Amino acid sequence: MQRIAIDMDGVLADVYHQFFEMDEKDFGQRRPMEEVAGKPEREGFPNILHYVYTQGFFRTAPVMEGSRQIVEELNKKYDLYIVSAATEFPQSLPEKQAWLNEHFPFITWQQMVFCGSKQIIQADIMIDDHFRNLDHFKGKTSLLYTQPHNVQANEGRHKRVNNWKEIAEILL
Amino acid sequence: MQRIAIDMDGVLADVYHQFFEMDEKDFGQRRPMEEVAGKPEREGFPNILHYVYTQGFFRTAPVMEGSRQIVEELNKKYDLYIVSAATEFPQSLPEKQAWLNEHFPFITWQQMVFCGSKQIIQADIMIDDHFRNLDHFKGKTSLLYTQPHNVQANEGRHKRVNNWKEIAEILL
Repeated sequence: MQRIAIDMDGVLADVYHQFFEMDEKDFGQRRPMEEVAGKPEREGFPNILHYVYTQGFFRTAPVMEGSRQIVEELNKKYDLYIVSAATEFPQSLPEKQAWLNEHFPFITWQQMVFCGSKQIIQADIMIDDHFRNLDHFKGKTSLLYTQPHNVQANEGRHKRVNNWKEIAEILL
Repeated sequence: MQRIAIDMDGVLADVYHQFFEMDEKDFGQRRPMEEVAGKPEREGFPNILHYVYTQGFFRTAPVMEGSRQIVEELNKKYDLYIVSAATEFPQSLPEKQAWLNEHFPFITWQQMVFCGSKQIIQADIMIDDHFRNLDHFKGKTSLLYTQPHNVQANEGRHKRVNNWKEIAEILL
C-alpha cells in the first residue's frame, strides 16, 4: 500500500479564507485577489503574523471544498497521514488536532504528524501548497496544491492540482 | 550528514519518575521496581491513564540524566530531530514543545515532530524505548533505550543502551 502525506493549511484547511476575512476587518475593505496572488503569504497580508497567532485561527478554518469525501476515499486505498508544519505556532497544535477530529473523524491519532521541517517524512505521494516542503520530498509523486501564493510559480518537477476533484482524478 | 530521530518519553523525559511519584501518592507507598520491571507501562501502574492525562504531567517531567549535554553535541554532528508519539494525548502537545524549549533550547521548531505512528519517519539512527517504534524503523542503527518496561526483553536486532553516556560512546 502506497503512503500518502497530506498537508493541512492551504490543502485541507482554507486558511486564505481566514486571511481575507481578518484582513478585511483590519483594513475596512476586501483586499482584491490580485494584491496577494503570487506573493508569499507574509507579504500578501500585512498583519498575517497576528492572525496565525490568534487563538482559534486554526480551529475555525473552513474545510477545503470537496476534501472530506475524497480524503475518506483515499484513506481506504492508501496508507494515509496528515502532515502539518505546525510547531512554528505552538498554540496551533491542539487546535489542529481538534479540527481534524471534528472534520475528518476517520483519521486516527496514529495518522497525524505535527512537525517543523518535512524533510524527515517518508512517503510515496505528498500533497502540499509550499515548494519548501515539496522540493525536498524524495517520494515519486509530489502534487502542488494551487493557492494564491503559488499561483504564478512554475510547478517545476511537481504536478499542479487546482482542487480536490483533480486530486481524486489522479489518485482514485 | 546522518539523520537521527530521538524519542522523548522514556529517553529524554524521565516519565517513570512521574509514574512512581503519582502512584505513591495514590497508593500510600513506593511501588518496588520489581513490580513494574518487564511489564507494559499500563500494567505496571494501575492508574497510569489518569497520570498521562493530568495537566502538567509532560511539562514537569525531569530531564533524563546526562541527556542535555550529549544531545547538544549530537546536534552539531547529526541532522537531529526530536520525534515524539504525542498525538495519543492531545493535551501533551503544547506541554512537550514548552518542555523542549526550556530544557533543550538549541532544538528549533523545525526539528520537532509530534506524531502518532513513527512508521513515516525517515532517518539513519533512531533512539527509542519502545519496540513498536524501533521494529518498523528502516534506518541502519536502532538503539533501544533501557526503561523498566523493556528491561527483560531481548534486544532483537536493536542495540541496547542503558544511559546517555553509552549513547555518547556509540555516536560521538
